[in-house]
Amino acid sequence: MPVGTQATVKGVPPRDLSEMGATMILSNTYHLYLRPGDALVARRGGLHKFMRWDGPILTDSGGFQVFSLSEFRKIDEDGVTFKSHLDGSMHRFTPEKSISVQENLGADVIMCFDECPPPGDYEYNQIALARTHAWARRCLDAHGPVKRTAHGHEQALFGIAQGGIFQDLREKSAAYISSLGFPGHAIGGLAVGESKENTLRTLEWMDAALPEDKPRYLMGVGEPRDLINGVARGVDMFDCVLPTRLARHGAAFTRGGRINMRNQIFIDDESPIDPTCDCYTCRTFTKSYIRHLIAVEEMLGLYLMSIHNLRFLLNLMSDIRAAIAANTFDSFAREWIARYEGKKI
Amino acid sequence: MPVGTQATVKGVPPRDLSEMGATMILSNTYHLYLRPGDALVARRGGLHKFMRWDGPILTDSGGFQVFSLSEFRKIDEDGVTFKSHLDGSMHRFTPEKSISVQENLGADVIMCFDECPPPGDYEYNQIALARTHAWARRCLDAHGPVKRTAHGHEQALFGIAQGGIFQDLREKSAAYISSLGFPGHAIGGLAVGESKENTLRTLEWMDAALPEDKPRYLMGVGEPRDLINGVARGVDMFDCVLPTRLARHGAAFTRGGRINMRNQIFIDDESPIDPTCDCYTCRTFTKSYIRHLIAVEEMLGLYLMSIHNLRFLLNLMSDIRAAIAANTFDSFAREWIARYEGKKI
Repeated sequence: MPVGTQATVKGVPPRDLSEMGATMILSNTYHLYLRPGDALVARRGGLHKFMRWDGPILTDSGGFQVFSLSEFRKIDEDGVTFKSHLDGSMHRFTPEKSISVQENLGADVIMCFDECPPPGDYEYNQIALARTHAWARRCLDAHGPVKRTAHGHEQALFGIAQGGIFQDLREKSAAYISSLGFPGHAIGGLAVGESKENTLRTLEWMDAALPEDKPRYLMGVGEPRDLINGVARGVDMFDCVLPTRLARHGAAFTRGGRINMRNQIFIDDESPIDPTCDCYTCRTFTKSYIRHLIAVEEMLGLYLMSIHNLRFLLNLMSDIRAAIAANTFDSFAREWIARYEGKKI
Repeated sequence: MPVGTQATVKGVPPRDLSEMGATMILSNTYHLYLRPGDALVARRGGLHKFMRWDGPILTDSGGFQVFSLSEFRKIDEDGVTFKSHLDGSMHRFTPEKSISVQENLGADVIMCFDECPPPGDYEYNQIALARTHAWARRCLDAHGPVKRTAHGHEQALFGIAQGGIFQDLREKSAAYISSLGFPGHAIGGLAVGESKENTLRTLEWMDAALPEDKPRYLMGVGEPRDLINGVARGVDMFDCVLPTRLARHGAAFTRGGRINMRNQIFIDDESPIDPTCDCYTCRTFTKSYIRHLIAVEEMLGLYLMSIHNLRFLLNLMSDIRAAIAANTFDSFAREWIARYEGKKI
């Protein structure tokens, strides 16, 4: 899922998202609650109409941003009081409030309000997990697993399993959350600073513990190898700001690894960013031109790089689906990662 | 002509320019000479191939920017020595150098290297005009009126008439420049600080003095009323950064005048920027959404506003051409300006 934090995938008009084959996109509840406000979005008929995106949308619960972005927060059993990172104003999110904001936004999939604690602190993860579970129950009570929105379509509520990097907590969480009857499950609290080894091990526990017949969503993950490693461990859905954020830093995905388009070696390079890519950028422009745009800080550079990086990941997911269908996923994954890391295949 | 200073119309991919009906675009010799360098553009096969714009391109001579942007310049009879506004490096432009850079860039129409003096100083305009005329002669000697470029298409050289706000100098300049046999003529040195009255009066002298059977180009002018007033005085071509610059400041053209999209009154406005406009932005998005994008400083806001402002001026020129063909230009012009200024028609 490309990320459209503030009701826009940064710099990319919706018709370009359609053209590149994006299906579901993600938008952030915390940001939209603050600006322009969920009541305004509701008056526009919901997020789809507001931003003119006809495809499905998923909103997060705001929980992660409340913990990572707000300047101050005080957590209690009932919810979180926090200070806006924009103007210092005070706000309060509870499970019921998060659901109400997400109902106003009107996404197709919404998420339970949860706490995302530091992954390595066992004692604290025990306390936080009890809260996350109680909040999941309250979110479900407020919304139900699926509800018809005021905007006229069905809105599914996904549960989130937490538990840091601890097997017993993760298994306990997966068991409890999946017992509640959500139509889909997310794995939260990963890719937040823990080691790669811990991420992969935790994903393996979750793969064994979560029901197979419902979609599994790994939150906030989107590096190409992480997508492959996630799918290998049973994950179906991902979101990440990486494609557009990297574009703003001048970096582009290629099958042979990440390249920095500011690099002088591209000054006279007449090849596209990735000759195997079929995006508008790669079909049309040379590295020489894109390097120029980035070097002189032209907005078009960010746009062309964003288009490419997003399409690159969508193509990767499409290739992954094809490999699964052809029963060749393991060799596909091994070869893809080796090529990306510049190793002999 | 939309302006693509650094080989890109700011934030607008070439396929969007085609879709909005842009024909000729302008690019700036001074900027491209400094970055990425005209030799690099030549190695790419010229500006068209470099930026992937199939339509015609016009480049200015660099003269205006040498005088307005460079940190230091010393003018003599042979040319101008100047300091780059980017890194303080020293450079020298002569008429021959400007032509050589423009040949490397390979636009369809290139301009004579001229001096653009303060418009109200008679003594200095006399001196500058003699230099501009001598340089026009040298540009013509270096290039000829039309030349086949290394990139395989014909490149026309336009002469520029100067003379500030003084009738005798303007008429002298028009007579001299048009005696040289250029395929088109530009009116330089206007819209640089002189009063509106002086601009219009000067345009009237030029209308009488320039040959009717060759295109006339008013440089650096693009405010909607200025386009109409220019056409009324015989001008065929314009360029201006206004549409994209205004977009970056949150301002949009409408038939009823310019509006600032940051304005709180648009918070719940579900109408497009201009209901009579057929651009992608107006066909698709509400003012409420665009105001949000501008308020939260999202790049997509600049893109959507640029698309609209450019299409607005292209539509205006198209309406002007239709009015001329229908022999209703005078009433069209009167009514258009009255509506734009919010007066009763």
